[in-house]
Amino acid sequence: MTTLYNRIQGRSVERLSALSDGIFAVAMTLLVLDIHLPAASSIHTQSELLRSLAAMAPQWAAYLMSFLTLGIFWAGQQTQLNHFAEGSRDLAWIHLGFLFAITLLPLSTRLLGEFVAFPAALLVYWANIFLAGATLYWSWKHAEANHLIRPDTPHETRAAICKRIVIAQTFYACAAALCFIRPLLSILAIVLVQLNYVFAPGTRRQRG
Amino acid sequence: MTTLYNRIQGRSVERLSALSDGIFAVAMTLLVLDIHLPAASSIHTQSELLRSLAAMAPQWAAYLMSFLTLGIFWAGQQTQLNHFAEGSRDLAWIHLGFLFAITLLPLSTRLLGEFVAFPAALLVYWANIFLAGATLYWSWKHAEANHLIRPDTPHETRAAICKRIVIAQTFYACAAALCFIRPLLSILAIVLVQLNYVFAPGTRRQRG
Amino acid sequence: MTTLYNRIQGRSVERLSALSDGIFAVAMTLLVLDIHLPAASSIHTQSELLRSLAAMAPQWAAYLMSFLTLGIFWAGQQTQLNHFAEGSRDLAWIHLGFLFAITLLPLSTRLLGEFVAFPAALLVYWANIFLAGATLYWSWKHAEANHLIRPDTPHETRAAICKRIVIAQTFYACAAALCFIRPLLSILAIVLVQLNYVFAPGTRRQRG
Amino acid sequence: MTTLYNRIQGRSVERLSALSDGIFAVAMTLLVLDIHLPAASSIHTQSELLRSLAAMAPQWAAYLMSFLTLGIFWAGQQTQLNHFAEGSRDLAWIHLGFLFAITLLPLSTRLLGEFVAFPAALLVYWANIFLAGATLYWSWKHAEANHLIRPDTPHETRAAICKRIVIAQTFYACAAALCFIRPLLSILAIVLVQLNYVFAPGTRRQRG
Repeated sequence: MTTLYNRIQGRSVERLSALSDGIFAVAMTLLVLDIHLPAASSIHTQSELLRSLAAMAPQWAAYLMSFLTLGIFWAGQQTQLNHFAEGSRDLAWIHLGFLFAITLLPLSTRLLGEFVAFPAALLVYWANIFLAGATLYWSWKHAEANHLIRPDTPHETRAAICKRIVIAQTFYACAAALCFIRPLLSILAIVLVQLNYVFAPGTRRQRG
Repeated sequence: MTTLYNRIQGRSVERLSALSDGIFAVAMTLLVLDIHLPAASSIHTQSELLRSLAAMAPQWAAYLMSFLTLGIFWAGQQTQLNHFAEGSRDLAWIHLGFLFAITLLPLSTRLLGEFVAFPAALLVYWANIFLAGATLYWSWKHAEANHLIRPDTPHETRAAICKRIVIAQTFYACAAALCFIRPLLSILAIVLVQLNYVFAPGTRRQRG
Repeated sequence: MTTLYNRIQGRSVERLSALSDGIFAVAMTLLVLDIHLPAASSIHTQSELLRSLAAMAPQWAAYLMSFLTLGIFWAGQQTQLNHFAEGSRDLAWIHLGFLFAITLLPLSTRLLGEFVAFPAALLVYWANIFLAGATLYWSWKHAEANHLIRPDTPHETRAAICKRIVIAQTFYACAAALCFIRPLLSILAIVLVQLNYVFAPGTRRQRG
Repeated sequence: MTTLYNRIQGRSVERLSALSDGIFAVAMTLLVLDIHLPAASSIHTQSELLRSLAAMAPQWAAYLMSFLTLGIFWAGQQTQLNHFAEGSRDLAWIHLGFLFAITLLPLSTRLLGEFVAFPAALLVYWANIFLAGATLYWSWKHAEANHLIRPDTPHETRAAICKRIVIAQTFYACAAALCFIRPLLSILAIVLVQLNYVFAPGTRRQRG
């Protein structure tokens, strides 16, 4: 009986997409709640306001970095979901694991922002990115093994989706390893990896 | 007139799914707001940071447990919604009752986390899970009685969906009853029930 | 040019539904943030916990009442949206006005919960319900005048949707007027009106 | 390989719409969290309550203004999305940039509300509106250059969508420039521009 129930559960890729879009939307919007404006009572002149906004630079940077990370993973998950012909119970739970990592991202970003001097904070942040990447990789491999991918998906596309995750995670791991030299260097490297995936300079060069 | 209005109301299963996905998405993401990072001013070395993160273990466990519970109920509700041919006013309100129980889950989880020593906190948590399960069971029975289920749904599937809820709720009730012996034993039993539904070990054994 | 732009804007009823479902989902889930659990430090025995949970009864009641109100308006709006053949710029803005009233509901409920002794708090709450009802009525009248309703919608359905809003708002206005006698009496009357729309006892009697 | 991956990424306009609707829904509902009701302990009579609600007028105005801004941009983005035949990786990222500006709007509105006396606060608010408008303009130009717009979209519609953004942003820039004379004058002008886009008086005159 349990087997039958598990066969009929989690079939709808559309529902999974809707839940994922909702979680990404809330996570992206909640990030802004972490930015605390200077108290009106402590600001008396306009130059004080400008100085205190400038002093919030690390907060703005952390916000931008989190938004980029969420955007990159949203785009990556949507690419997979668009290629699934149907879902399955196990696939739904792999993606719930992925979404679990996504809901933790605002928290690990805040941890990184407050304890930027400690390698441990950066390793927690990296572990979070790794968990998201690993579940996405697992999702694709599971879908391939269980024939859940649209039959018209060419072999090159399938290979490209896997390779993409492996290369990105290798970049992230190397960037995170720099934290043992200096945590700020590591953050800079992670931001560079993210900007690479946002602007995709290689693509444009090849097109030109 | 009221009768006519009630006939035309709540017909769209799609809208009900969208509202449900939204509520689950917000509830899953809001859970993380309950996790309070250690204050930067109280942490001076990396080992202090690691110790305070480890001391937050009960918070992490409560977060994971709530996420699993929400995931299990999301999967259960979606399975039902995918089998409905159309909705009705009464069905929409039964699901609003279910969603009411879902929005309370983050609250009763926090109650459990803070008052883990008292059986009353565990009984409130169990009552919340029971309310969610009972409305889901009612939803299916109501849909069957009012011919709202897709005609191509085989009899075995219909039986499996009901049996599933009854068995799961029996497990939860037994686990909750353990709180009179020791509350922590009860929580452990609930987590085991949840992990059983996430990993479905029985299914995999039968397949192998 | 502006005229042309206004003709092509806001045509998608589907997008309007998605935005509305999202706003209702967030509003329903955010309500729970207003419930403040007793501090763990002030509770030493289980009977203290039970007493303080019981003392929160007005908060639980306000939460349930807000959830019912949101559910009633969600059902009412969805019924209308399901009958629209297409949208228009003006219709989208009428519904944004409706959604504005919906986002204010958690706030006016909290106002009512904290200042239950003052008729003014109840009148603000009623004004909020009235604004939501008035925009829904306007939406239907506007859709009728601009031929946005599905042609296959029978005349009786059209009349029922209008009549429903007028009757409900009359009930709410009478219930609110009781606040000049006694605010609590007025709240009780509002809850009775809401329960009437949730359980629709008249319908079931007619069917039986 | 990267090139292939970038070709298959971000194709779904539907997913982009769902994410956008979610972000707008959360942003619109979160705005209300910024409104702080008077503490019950400081209010003893009904006239005190009314006076303190009236004293919150700037907060109510900021809330209404933010809601209108979000509504205008939601309507503008949906108009574009409805005309796209398909998406692309770059288009998805342009819209993620737009959504980034949207998630910042509640924050810059709060900044404006608290530091209304300083031109700098108004310029930050205007920069936020400009960023949202600029990304929307870029999105349309990008979609035109890459043939992503539905072929049946008439030339006049295409021109109207661009012209609309340019005219609106010109109005906003002029209104913002008034802050060097007097910030409140500038806010008044921005509200007038917004009300113009909500009620579209020109359209109605031409129809009449």
